Amino acid sequence: MYNCSISLQVLPGVPEGELFGAVDKVIEYIISTGVRYVVGPFDTTMEGDFDELMDILKRCQQIAVENGADGVFSNVKIAYHPKGVSTIDEKISKYRG
Amino acid sequence: MYNCSISLQVLPGVPEGELFGAVDKVIEYIISTGVRYVVGPFDTTMEGDFDELMDILKRCQQIAVENGADGVFSNVKIAYHPKGVSTIDEKISKYRG
Amino acid sequence: MYNCSISLQVLPGVPEGELFGAVDKVIEYIISTGVRYVVGPFDTTMEGDFDELMDILKRCQQIAVENGADGVFSNVKIAYHPKGVSTIDEKISKYRG
Amino acid sequence: MYNCSISLQVLPGVPEGELFGAVDKVIEYIISTGVRYVVGPFDTTMEGDFDELMDILKRCQQIAVENGADGVFSNVKIAYHPKGVSTIDEKISKYRG
Repeated sequence: MYNCSISLQVLPGVPEGELFGAVDKVIEYIISTGVRYVVGPFDTTMEGDFDELMDILKRCQQIAVENGADGVFSNVKIAYHPKGVSTIDEKISKYRG
Repeated sequence: MYNCSISLQVLPGVPEGELFGAVDKVIEYIISTGVRYVVGPFDTTMEGDFDELMDILKRCQQIAVENGADGVFSNVKIAYHPKGVSTIDEKISKYRG
Repeated sequence: MYNCSISLQVLPGVPEGELFGAVDKVIEYIISTGVRYVVGPFDTTMEGDFDELMDILKRCQQIAVENGADGVFSNVKIAYHPKGVSTIDEKISKYRG
Repeated sequence: MYNCSISLQVLPGVPEGELFGAVDKVIEYIISTGVRYVVGPFDTTMEGDFDELMDILKRCQQIAVENGADGVFSNVKIAYHPKGVSTIDEKISKYRG
C-alpha cells in the first residue's frame, strides 16, 4: 500500500513550439524511476512512498531546466496519507473499459 | 477541432467517507453531456467548445452542492486556444499501450 | 455575505517577456467589474456572487486571447458555498499588519 | 536574488470545522523558518532558495498529519528559475496601496 500520490504538470519556460520536448524529458525521467504512474492530458500522476515521490518531484524541476528551459513553472497536487492513499487504479478503473 | 480543454477536480465539503459519492454525481453529469472526457486519478478532463465547457464547469459546481455537500472547492485548469488546442489523444496516446 | 470565491492565474501563450502585459489586462478587467479582489504573487482572488464570478472567469479567458495571446492556460480555484464562504479578510487578516 | 517561489494550499483531512487550526500550524511553521512569505486567501507563497523551499514544502505535509489530520491534500505551485524569479514584491506591489 502506498502512502502518497503526486500529480505534476510542468510548464517549462521555453518557446511554445518546444514545450513538449522538455515535458517529455521529465516524463521519461519519471518512467525511469520505476514508480507507478499514469500520464494524463495536463499532468502525470505518480504513486508510491512519500519520501521517494518528494525526491522525484524535486528532481523533475531540475531536469526541466537542464533541458533548455530558463525556468520552470509547475502545478503540483500532493496527497499524503501515512496510513495509505486510494490507489490510481481504485480511483479510475470504473471509468475505463 | 476543439478550442478548449478543461480539467476539473471537485472536492465537495462532505465527510471524507462520503466524498466519492458526491464526486461520482459530477462525473455522471459530465458523461451525460456527451463531451469527450477522460477520468484521471485527481481530476476529469473534458475537451470541446469553450462556451459549452464553461457552462458544464459551472453546472458541476451546482451539482456538487445539490448532492449533499454544504459547499464545494474545485481545482480547475482551462486551456483555451481559439484556433484549436492539442487533443487529449495527442497528448497521452504515446504513453498508453 | 458572499457565496463564492474564485482565484485565477492566467498564463497567456505569449513570449515570456510579454507575459505581464497580457496578465495586466486581465487584472484591469477584474478591477473594472467592481468585485472585491486581492492580487497575489501567482493569482488574483475575487469574492462575490457565484453567477457573476463565473461570468467574470469566462470573460478573463477571452480578454487574454484578445490581447495578443494565441491561447491561454489558466489555473483556477473555485469555492462555492450557497450559504456563504469565508471572506478574504477573514482568512488573511490575522497574518497582515 | 531568489531562484524559487512556492505557493502552498494545504487541505488537511479533518472535519471542516477544524480545518483552520491545522492550516494555522502549517503557516506558523512557514513563518518560523524565516523565509519571505505572504498569506493569501487560498494559499501561502514563499520565496527563497530552491533546496530550502523544497524541504519546507515537504515538512509542511508532515506537520499537517502531525496535527490531527489523517492525511493531507495540497495544491502547490513551484516557480524555479536558476537565474532568479520575479519577487513577490515585484509582482504585487503595484496593486497594493
